[in-house]
Amino acid sequence: MAVKDLPSIPDAEYADRLRKAQELMRRSGFDVLLANSNEADFANVRYFSDYWPLFEIAGVVISPQGKAALLIGPESEAFARDRSKIQPIYKMVEYRESADPAYPGVAVSNFQKVFADLGVSDPKRIGVAGYLVTTAPVLDSLRQAFPQAKIERADSIMVTLRSIKSEAELACLRRAFEVSELALQKVLEQIKPGMTELQAVGIAQKAMYENGAEYEAHPTYVLAGSNSRHAISRPTHKIIQAGELVQLNVGARISGYSPSVGVPICMGKMTPRMRELVEFGLQAHEKTISWMKAGVVASELAKRYKQLFIDNGYGENFLYGPCHGLGMIEVEPPWMEETSEYPLAQNMTFQVDTFIQDKDFGLRIENGACVTSDGTELMSGKFRKIIELDV
Amino acid sequence: MAVKDLPSIPDAEYADRLRKAQELMRRSGFDVLLANSNEADFANVRYFSDYWPLFEIAGVVISPQGKAALLIGPESEAFARDRSKIQPIYKMVEYRESADPAYPGVAVSNFQKVFADLGVSDPKRIGVAGYLVTTAPVLDSLRQAFPQAKIERADSIMVTLRSIKSEAELACLRRAFEVSELALQKVLEQIKPGMTELQAVGIAQKAMYENGAEYEAHPTYVLAGSNSRHAISRPTHKIIQAGELVQLNVGARISGYSPSVGVPICMGKMTPRMRELVEFGLQAHEKTISWMKAGVVASELAKRYKQLFIDNGYGENFLYGPCHGLGMIEVEPPWMEETSEYPLAQNMTFQVDTFIQDKDFGLRIENGACVTSDGTELMSGKFRKIIELDV
Repeated sequence: MAVKDLPSIPDAEYADRLRKAQELMRRSGFDVLLANSNEADFANVRYFSDYWPLFEIAGVVISPQGKAALLIGPESEAFARDRSKIQPIYKMVEYRESADPAYPGVAVSNFQKVFADLGVSDPKRIGVAGYLVTTAPVLDSLRQAFPQAKIERADSIMVTLRSIKSEAELACLRRAFEVSELALQKVLEQIKPGMTELQAVGIAQKAMYENGAEYEAHPTYVLAGSNSRHAISRPTHKIIQAGELVQLNVGARISGYSPSVGVPICMGKMTPRMRELVEFGLQAHEKTISWMKAGVVASELAKRYKQLFIDNGYGENFLYGPCHGLGMIEVEPPWMEETSEYPLAQNMTFQVDTFIQDKDFGLRIENGACVTSDGTELMSGKFRKIIELDV
Repeated sequence: MAVKDLPSIPDAEYADRLRKAQELMRRSGFDVLLANSNEADFANVRYFSDYWPLFEIAGVVISPQGKAALLIGPESEAFARDRSKIQPIYKMVEYRESADPAYPGVAVSNFQKVFADLGVSDPKRIGVAGYLVTTAPVLDSLRQAFPQAKIERADSIMVTLRSIKSEAELACLRRAFEVSELALQKVLEQIKPGMTELQAVGIAQKAMYENGAEYEAHPTYVLAGSNSRHAISRPTHKIIQAGELVQLNVGARISGYSPSVGVPICMGKMTPRMRELVEFGLQAHEKTISWMKAGVVASELAKRYKQLFIDNGYGENFLYGPCHGLGMIEVEPPWMEETSEYPLAQNMTFQVDTFIQDKDFGLRIENGACVTSDGTELMSGKFRKIIELDV
């Protein structure tokens, strides 16, 4: 696949994102917005700046007038200057790496100066987005700098901005799914009993990076035998055995967008129970897709999905589902739970995530879908079938 | 390399770590210790439990009597039960993933119950380690649960525990460097002009996972041309050109230990300036190693190192150095800065990290070293030379 024609987000769209954020924060009555990210969840900062931190963390400050600044740790200046769509850039110790260096002699800034430079001198209400990845030192420092201000969660602003995808974002996701399926195909061709789960991960990684990935979209899953029961997991040195069910989830990140393609495969013939559950999973997966379209309330879909498990005698095998938001992070808001009282809207993107947990194994069929006015555009789906490898 | 004989930390050592932590927290006067981790810095939680989170975050609670509990997010139960050396395990919404699901109907615990179960009912002083990765919701929740308690940073306990390595830890690091050098060798064999930085990353990844890595020790660096100026960076789709200096940093994580081997290479013949700076880098690197031994005060070494740059006319090219702690995280305390007033001790491990920043390129020579009574055991070092590839 040509690496040179990779889709990406145009500069004008970054400017537009700032304008929209400014509008939303003014409507919410915030005097300033601080959006934070870390290495694992880089999305809010990258959404505005294209910068994504590692080792250190990062933040973006936006004023109600739409001025913005990037906050980085003391070691990332050259990287950030080459990469960020936002100027100015401030180094702050609050955004340092977790190894906690002291940086004697390095000139750093602070929240008071940054806010003042953006024209925010005496904020009454500070909105903090990425609250779940905002660290204790950042929070402490904000409180000390502005003891009179109310510090409030502002994540709903980011959910509003990020949940409806632009055409550029959809192009990134489409390519990301394409590369993910290609990497998954390579694993299917090369995986065999005797290999460890982690060796199979290496096959996926090589194929992703060869074909345009900038990173894995999530830690790659190759979970064999009972490890496939894990809803969240990490691959191990377990040796893959003939006859085992192996859960694969492969995702290639393209220009900041992070999909996953999930497929349960068998190293040989499936047992009757494996086949029964994979077949039910495929049905539940197709049903979910058939229920999705603009206007449908998410909670209704979640309730129907759970009822499907119960009606078919699989209530005990249900853990969660049927979908979660998809975008820069492979799991992002909005979720689709029984309490999710929002209607699906055009250009919302979801991972259709059909997870079934049994006693000795589990399985997950996972593909991407974009909501359209009358249904969905499926962004992956090549592997929606019973896959039994010849071993 | 045989993947089946990988070194790891024995169960008895996990028990011993808890005992030592208990002793240290009692000496510090804490009524309870909470050590937190996230996906990027997993170390504190893994140090006690062998569990390392992804998507979600995690914590370990230790009482002065040495009782311990693992705190996880609501989705990781099967994974954590299979993996954790610590029981009991509690699911808590504070440790959920950043996508912020609501989990209707899922039974979760809270700090009051967890602490009470461990016999901690009315803590006056709560020590929090991993403070730099402790999130706002965790901190808020602790404060609400125990409004009378003083919440204090307890990172020094973890630094004391983690900075002197056991024989098992050294075995993990030695193997990790061995696999990293092997992966780096593969990159040297296959990298060529016309390839993107990220495609070269894929070569390293495949080799790491083939030979026993459980993950990359840090995002792999392949930084070509001016990108090599970045002290912290991420590889891009930049196409590698003949004549460019390319900075490689490759690290394979083995059983939770995370080294890096750093080498600047040239895609052809080096320019005189490149050669001059790489040669000075190699000298500075050897000097640093020759200065290290048990008893030397870290700040003295840092001062000598900086003076070496100044004396040779490279003061402007100095950014930081000469070493940082190495262990579970590729960069961990203790650092070696001009303010680091601790003496090097036997079995402390460091990355000897010689970074030189010029206008158009930069370079980093990086190897692992374990402090001994009369010097160091070098844990990597095969590539300490001028490397010019035939292109």
